[in-house]
Amino acid sequence: MKREWDLLHTPGPTPVPPSVERAMSQPMIGHRGQKCKDLMLDLAPRLKPVFGTSGEVLVVTGSGTSALEAAVVNTTNPGDEVIVVVAGAFGDRFAQICETYELNVHRIDVEWGRAVDVEQVETFLKTYPDSKAVFLTHSETSTGVMHPIEAIAERVREISNALVIADGVSSMGGAKVDMDGSGIDIVVSGSQKAMMLPPGLAFVAVSERAWEVIDQNERPRFYLDLRVYKKQLANGQTPFTPALSLLFGLDEVLRLMEEEGFENVFERHQLMKDMTRAACRALNLPLLVSDEDASSTVTSIRPQTFDAEKLRKIANEEFGLILAGGQKHMKGEIFRIGHMGYVRPANVFQYISILEVILKRLGHEFEPGAGTAAAQEAYLEGTRGE
Amino acid sequence: MKREWDLLHTPGPTPVPPSVERAMSQPMIGHRGQKCKDLMLDLAPRLKPVFGTSGEVLVVTGSGTSALEAAVVNTTNPGDEVIVVVAGAFGDRFAQICETYELNVHRIDVEWGRAVDVEQVETFLKTYPDSKAVFLTHSETSTGVMHPIEAIAERVREISNALVIADGVSSMGGAKVDMDGSGIDIVVSGSQKAMMLPPGLAFVAVSERAWEVIDQNERPRFYLDLRVYKKQLANGQTPFTPALSLLFGLDEVLRLMEEEGFENVFERHQLMKDMTRAACRALNLPLLVSDEDASSTVTSIRPQTFDAEKLRKIANEEFGLILAGGQKHMKGEIFRIGHMGYVRPANVFQYISILEVILKRLGHEFEPGAGTAAAQEAYLEGTRGE
Repeated sequence: MKREWDLLHTPGPTPVPPSVERAMSQPMIGHRGQKCKDLMLDLAPRLKPVFGTSGEVLVVTGSGTSALEAAVVNTTNPGDEVIVVVAGAFGDRFAQICETYELNVHRIDVEWGRAVDVEQVETFLKTYPDSKAVFLTHSETSTGVMHPIEAIAERVREISNALVIADGVSSMGGAKVDMDGSGIDIVVSGSQKAMMLPPGLAFVAVSERAWEVIDQNERPRFYLDLRVYKKQLANGQTPFTPALSLLFGLDEVLRLMEEEGFENVFERHQLMKDMTRAACRALNLPLLVSDEDASSTVTSIRPQTFDAEKLRKIANEEFGLILAGGQKHMKGEIFRIGHMGYVRPANVFQYISILEVILKRLGHEFEPGAGTAAAQEAYLEGTRGE
Repeated sequence: MKREWDLLHTPGPTPVPPSVERAMSQPMIGHRGQKCKDLMLDLAPRLKPVFGTSGEVLVVTGSGTSALEAAVVNTTNPGDEVIVVVAGAFGDRFAQICETYELNVHRIDVEWGRAVDVEQVETFLKTYPDSKAVFLTHSETSTGVMHPIEAIAERVREISNALVIADGVSSMGGAKVDMDGSGIDIVVSGSQKAMMLPPGLAFVAVSERAWEVIDQNERPRFYLDLRVYKKQLANGQTPFTPALSLLFGLDEVLRLMEEEGFENVFERHQLMKDMTRAACRALNLPLLVSDEDASSTVTSIRPQTFDAEKLRKIANEEFGLILAGGQKHMKGEIFRIGHMGYVRPANVFQYISILEVILKRLGHEFEPGAGTAAAQEAYLEGTRGE
């Protein structure tokens, strides 16, 4: 079973800060009482800077996928044309949900490991001008790509009325997004990635434009009917019993983020990405994604000289270092390191050093200590002037 | 905000045992790793005695309502005729979900505070012989009524092929049900009532007969598609990221129940119901529900000589005793006491005694100490011979 001392570096779930664990371990409260209302009304505005929005951020009890589904069922009707960017497992999931709900899906298939071009989206929108929405992934967890959702939203706004709907599950809290400024309509996220909580909460940030569509949409939905979440939130309520211990934890998560400062949180993630990538280069570990397209929260490595699964096995058994493998056709091809949420530069130093030991065992060639030195250099570079 | 010393006696959420709090406060694990698989495969069979079934009990991350919705969307198609027993707020919710999903709903409206008769269900089934399912609530949390779902299922089985689908949110873990023996097809529940956990997990127990319907049902569903939960559970997996800390807690909850013995758990709930009702009678507090129809997990009182809301306010402010009010048209009419899950007879003694103090303040007439004496007598009666 699990060990207390595991070093969890999957791209979600991520480590939960001890103060958040403590905050969650509080006696239950009635979810229709004043205390829960006070908590909800306190949390609601504090979530907005995470999403870069002045609009509502709704809290749903469910996995991230429940929020993806909410984004689909609240904005579309059977037969609607939509465009979905598919550049990995989670873009594919958005497309699957759209297909399940009988939409006419135009997939923009992008090679796994690359970001979609703004121009590709523009071309699709011009080819399918009746498209009601563009669905895309911000940080594609399966590859470690971060798509330029702000630039895409700005272009879409210029040429179309389509909603721009982004999966921010593995980016919100770990990457800066200006939802309002760039015209993104919906961003959904989950609790278990950069938000430093166990899984069980999903977030749905919604623009005014999106509400106009949602309020008029007649597709049947009940648990995921965002209209009800919005209406109830105005009174500090949730439509259904919320995952209370996670809300207690969210309060502490937001306090930690506010204490650090949101800008500093986002910069720390950039820094950890730069440290990890610099180390990989120094260790002759091929990065799956280019600098330009790389996610700030997860890094994928495609080894050529050893078996990725063997590295993961040793990391787990010898060090308790838990890394993720590849998904779907990339299974066995890559391994992925999550560096988000409660992870700090000190943790990056730790996993880089462990990787060096394992690489040595595997007979991979590199200059001893080169990864660590590179990570340190990137750290000093990134924090210069502070 | 909340106080550490609150005495939470709402009919859910309910107090979480300290060992369960500790079990939940463990480091996150990867939900696709061996540790999570081991945990899921360990939990799956241990949930079955709670539901009295040898079939699968699926675990969904969501509120209880998500499981109600899962029961509807997996078994029905638009236009289907269904029968829904509505005897309170949660029966009404089942009907609302059915209506949202465009079913042809035949409501059996029962006076709030009474259980449905087996004969009423039989009459409806004979009037609407094409009905695909009978939806009903086991413990109707809003009134404290427990419907005779086993007897109803047996009668339905004799005269119809309709599925019998029960909301066991506030009963599972607090009342014995023989799902297999009585022919109930689906029972759904939630984590935050007699299951002693924070909210965030929902359970769906499914019979073989129900799977035949579910597997062939073509209604679009994604997050709540039970087929996928079943398929993945066979490999110790969940289709979407599960609320891991709640799964850690569930492991400890089941250990506590196994240690006590399921029969003893169910009998303890009966005992607490009897103690509470005996005390109310001795205190001249009118019970909403008859002995025959009373739920083992929640007791409703309809005071005549004082304001229910005033009693709740004093209980909260002076003693930290949190009781529930009435719902919908019973708001202000009744108050409700939850006695389930981690609640023990000692807690019943405590709240009865507190109620006596408050009743004195409110000028309600009763023989001093009569409630406590009656609860004690019921306790001794119920535990005689042990």
